[in-house]
Amino acid sequence: MQGELERAIAVVSGAPAKVIGAGRTDAGVHATGQVISFRSATELDGAVLSRGVNALLPADIAVYGVVPVADPFHARYSATGRTYEYRILNAPERDPLERLREHWLPGALDADALSRAAERIVGRRDFGAFAAGPGGVREVRRAGWRREGTRLVFEIEADAFLRGMVRAIVGTMIRIGRGKLRPEELDAIVASRDRSKAGPSAPANGLCLVNVEYGEYGERRNEVSDGDGDDE
Amino acid sequence: MQGELERAIAVVSGAPAKVIGAGRTDAGVHATGQVISFRSATELDGAVLSRGVNALLPADIAVYGVVPVADPFHARYSATGRTYEYRILNAPERDPLERLREHWLPGALDADALSRAAERIVGRRDFGAFAAGPGGVREVRRAGWRREGTRLVFEIEADAFLRGMVRAIVGTMIRIGRGKLRPEELDAIVASRDRSKAGPSAPANGLCLVNVEYGEYGERRNEVSDGDGDDE
Repeated sequence: MQGELERAIAVVSGAPAKVIGAGRTDAGVHATGQVISFRSATELDGAVLSRGVNALLPADIAVYGVVPVADPFHARYSATGRTYEYRILNAPERDPLERLREHWLPGALDADALSRAAERIVGRRDFGAFAAGPGGVREVRRAGWRREGTRLVFEIEADAFLRGMVRAIVGTMIRIGRGKLRPEELDAIVASRDRSKAGPSAPANGLCLVNVEYGEYGERRNEVSDGDGDDE
Repeated sequence: MQGELERAIAVVSGAPAKVIGAGRTDAGVHATGQVISFRSATELDGAVLSRGVNALLPADIAVYGVVPVADPFHARYSATGRTYEYRILNAPERDPLERLREHWLPGALDADALSRAAERIVGRRDFGAFAAGPGGVREVRRAGWRREGTRLVFEIEADAFLRGMVRAIVGTMIRIGRGKLRPEELDAIVASRDRSKAGPSAPANGLCLVNVEYGEYGERRNEVSDGDGDDE
């Protein structure tokens, strides 16, 4: 995604551009709320730039808006919160039309156990047990499952995420939903900071970055916020 | 789709199968409500057959159920009604995640004119003006547009459709929504039975076969209903 955006911005603005994204989106992961920043000396206004860039981007990427920001703004480091969703189709048969954006998981899932597990994941802790790379302290502010027909959707908000964190949390929760693990056992998994104690990572296709927050950035444009980076 | 289904059914049931679909779905057209029929001497029950076939089908096709029917049943000729949906994303920017199933059309569309046009299309007439092939009398029982956020969704039900009929109707309605044609002008277009009088066909990706009806087939299993074939 980064390469395509950089090429398109370079063509439209007439100069090379380096793009910074608020959250990583690995292959197969989607984003409806991604925010990127780049520096440009262009005099084109946001609407013109956005239209031009969209005309050059492949069909699987689109820019929804371009706005000027004060110089220290950094899509990743200025972000104060991120929200991801993970969609599971919990039905006997798969849904071809949604296959690129949700994980199909037939068979019983205990929604009540999933909800109790979500409550236990909230808090400020070292989530190394769910990290594909190095661990670190992150603050999960909100986590919960909701039902949409035959879909179970997990929504999780944190200041930032460790690499692979949401997929590892969801994979572990699926074990809980299957009755192979009790919700209370999550505490010991988190405390262990040991990736091998958690469940396997859920597939990328169910994951979507839905929102990025920038706190009061508007009010304090001249200082860079100290939000952690995001590695999901 | 037909080829993949026939191969999968042949493998699971152990004998070649010829598949008949209720409605044509050209390349790029989707179906959430397609019905197919085939003859088989298999003794496997529906659930086993369905599971086996799904395991062999590519990710973009899925079978939702298999039920035995009396011999004269024919997915196409026994059908007494079909419903298609056509989805338009009417927003300034495209939506990459929905690009395979809706037609992106930025710019003003007059929803009120669209609704008035939909009312005029209802009735039993020769819809040759909207046919990619030969014309013929069809009965449009219901047609209307609904808004879902930034989406405009057209739903149309008929006993059967001529080939390319829904896409040609939608393409003509788009011209009405753009103010290039008045809703009342539809009457003359239908009366002309001349394809060149109608608008261009709307792209395939927005079209989806959502339902097929079989009337009282359950009550009169030993006669084939006389519903027309469907060529959309």
